[in-house]
Amino acid sequence: MTDGPDRAAPDAPPRPSVVTLAGGVGAAKLLSGLIRVHPSSDQLAVVNTADDTVLHGLHISPDLDTVVYTLAGAVNPDTGWGLAGETWQAMDALDRYGGITWFRLGDRDLATHLYRTHRMEQGADLAAVTAEIAAAWGLELAVLPVTNDPIETRVTTVDEGEIGFQDYFVRRRHDVGVTAVRVAGVEAAQPAPGLIEALRAARSIIIAPSNPIVSIGPVLGVPGVREAVAARRDAVAAVSPIVGGAALKGPADRLMRELGHESSVVGVARLYQDVAATLVVDESDAYLADDVEAAGMACVVAPTVMDGVESAAELARTVLSSTGVSRG
Amino acid sequence: MTDGPDRAAPDAPPRPSVVTLAGGVGAAKLLSGLIRVHPSSDQLAVVNTADDTVLHGLHISPDLDTVVYTLAGAVNPDTGWGLAGETWQAMDALDRYGGITWFRLGDRDLATHLYRTHRMEQGADLAAVTAEIAAAWGLELAVLPVTNDPIETRVTTVDEGEIGFQDYFVRRRHDVGVTAVRVAGVEAAQPAPGLIEALRAARSIIIAPSNPIVSIGPVLGVPGVREAVAARRDAVAAVSPIVGGAALKGPADRLMRELGHESSVVGVARLYQDVAATLVVDESDAYLADDVEAAGMACVVAPTVMDGVESAAELARTVLSSTGVSRG
Repeated sequence: MTDGPDRAAPDAPPRPSVVTLAGGVGAAKLLSGLIRVHPSSDQLAVVNTADDTVLHGLHISPDLDTVVYTLAGAVNPDTGWGLAGETWQAMDALDRYGGITWFRLGDRDLATHLYRTHRMEQGADLAAVTAEIAAAWGLELAVLPVTNDPIETRVTTVDEGEIGFQDYFVRRRHDVGVTAVRVAGVEAAQPAPGLIEALRAARSIIIAPSNPIVSIGPVLGVPGVREAVAARRDAVAAVSPIVGGAALKGPADRLMRELGHESSVVGVARLYQDVAATLVVDESDAYLADDVEAAGMACVVAPTVMDGVESAAELARTVLSSTGVSRG
Repeated sequence: MTDGPDRAAPDAPPRPSVVTLAGGVGAAKLLSGLIRVHPSSDQLAVVNTADDTVLHGLHISPDLDTVVYTLAGAVNPDTGWGLAGETWQAMDALDRYGGITWFRLGDRDLATHLYRTHRMEQGADLAAVTAEIAAAWGLELAVLPVTNDPIETRVTTVDEGEIGFQDYFVRRRHDVGVTAVRVAGVEAAQPAPGLIEALRAARSIIIAPSNPIVSIGPVLGVPGVREAVAARRDAVAAVSPIVGGAALKGPADRLMRELGHESSVVGVARLYQDVAATLVVDESDAYLADDVEAAGMACVVAPTVMDGVESAAELARTVLSSTGVSRG
C-alpha cells in the first residue's frame, strides 16, 4: 500500500470528491448533513488535532472523537460531544484521590482513549488508529487527523500567561482574556499521509463552521496544507462560524476580537479569503454580503444554524452547490 | 524528611512493630485480620510489584490495589480483587474496538490506575503514589511497594515460551505448563525507601500466605531484602499458602511442583527455612509438623483458612504470638 487516504482508512477511496476541514461540534454537525446528501464513502474529514492532550497517560483527541461519535449517531445530543447515555463511575471514583476530573471522561468514552493509547504504544500512528476507530463505529466517510505529529494549541492569557488549550477551553471555560494563540510543534509537523494528494484531487473542499483561530487555524497551519488549499481556492467554500456577530458555540467571537479581528462574517472572510472562494453566511448576516464580497469572497446566504439533521443536510446541499461537486 | 516509611507514607511510624511481606488476595485477608488485633498505625505491608503491568498506557499494580481495597473494606467479596459493586462500561465499550478486555478493569477501579499513572508521569515514585492512594481510602497501615523500580515476573511456558505474568495468570488462567519463572529487572532494583530499616526495627515480620514463587519470591528477590529478613529470622513467621497439598487460590501448588518443589507445607518450609524461624500450617497438615521441623522451621498448627474477618483475626493472633510482638 502507498501513502494516501487508503493507507489511513483502508475502505476509503484514494481520491474522495469531498474533503472537509473540521474542528469539533460545528464541523461534526455539518458532516452529519454532508453524509446525507453525498455518498459517505466519497468523503474525507480532515480533523484538527491541536486540541489533543495526554491526560492520566491517555491520548485524548477531542475533535476526532466528536466527529466520529456524531457521524455514528452516538454523540450526546445535549452537549454535542461525548457519548449519549454515558456513565461517570471512573470520574466519580477519581474524586476520592483528588485526581483531575475537570476534563470529564465518561466510562464508555474512556474505552476510546484506552484503545487509542494502546495502539499508539504498539507503534500505530494516529491516522491508522483513527481509521480503526471510525471503522469500528461503522463510518464509511474517512476520518483523518491533519497530522500524525503532536501539535498543541497554547493560549496566552492575560492573568496566567501561557496555558494549554484544554486548560483554557474546558477548565477555565474560555472565560479568560487572551492575548495570543500559537500552535506548538506545527512548524515541524508533516501533513497526514495522503492529505495533500486528497486536497489536490477533491472536487469540493469545505471549511466547516469551526473556530477559525483554534480549530481551522491549526489545520491550515500544518506546513503544506494552506498552500494546497489555496491552490484549489475556486473549489473551496467555508461556512461562517460567526452568526450575527457571535459564535454559536465556544469562544470564536471573543478570540477573534481579542486577537484583532472583526467578530463578524466580514472578519471571517478576511481570514479565509486567501484559501477559499466562497463564504456561506447565515440569513441574519445577509446585509453584510457586500462587505464579504469586498473582502474578496463570493457570499452565499443561507440558513446556517443546524438544529437537526434536516437543517444540516440543507446547509450541506447549499455548500456543495456553491463549489463544484453537485454541478459536476 | 529522610528516607523511611514516613517518607512513603507520611502518617506511618518510621519503625512499625509489624511488617508483613505480601502478595495479593491471601495476604490482604491476613492483613485484614492483623489490623483487628494490632494497631494499624503500627504496621507496614510490603507488597509485591512484579505483577505490575502497563496496559492501555496505564500503570496497574494488582497486588497493591488488592491490599488497599481489602483493608478499606471495598474489595469485591466474590473475587477477592477489584471493587465491590463495580460497573464495566469501559470494558464493554472497549469490545467494540477489539481492544484488550481479558484483563478486566472496572470503571471505578480505572480511576486508581488513571490517578497512579498521572502522578507517576508527574514524577512521583510508586511508593509515594501508593501512600496517597492508601490515605485516600483511609488506611492507617502503611502500604509500601517492595521497590520503586520496575520489576516483572516472566513465566516460561511449555507451549509458548516466555510470557508476561498477567498473560500467564489472567489471560491463560495459569492453565499452562511452566518450566521457569524469573523476575526481570530485580537484580537492578533498589528496595523501597525505608524498607530495609523497617525490617531491621520490626518486632514481627510476617510472610503472608501468598504464592512463594511469584508473590513472595520477587519481594525477597529485591537485593538486600532476603538478607535483611534472614538477619531477623527469629522474628519471622510465615503462613503456609499450601493447605492439604493444594493452594487455596491460584497456581502455587502447580508452580511449586513444576519447578521441582514439593507441593506441601514441607515444600514451603524448605523454601522459607533460611529467612523464617516459624511456619504456621493448617490443622489439616498437622501430621506433617515433624517434617516441617526437620526442614528447619518451628511448626505452629492452627486453622489457616480465612473465610471471614473473624478467622483472619484469629490467625493473625496466632501468627503474632508465634513471633515477638504479642509477648513483648
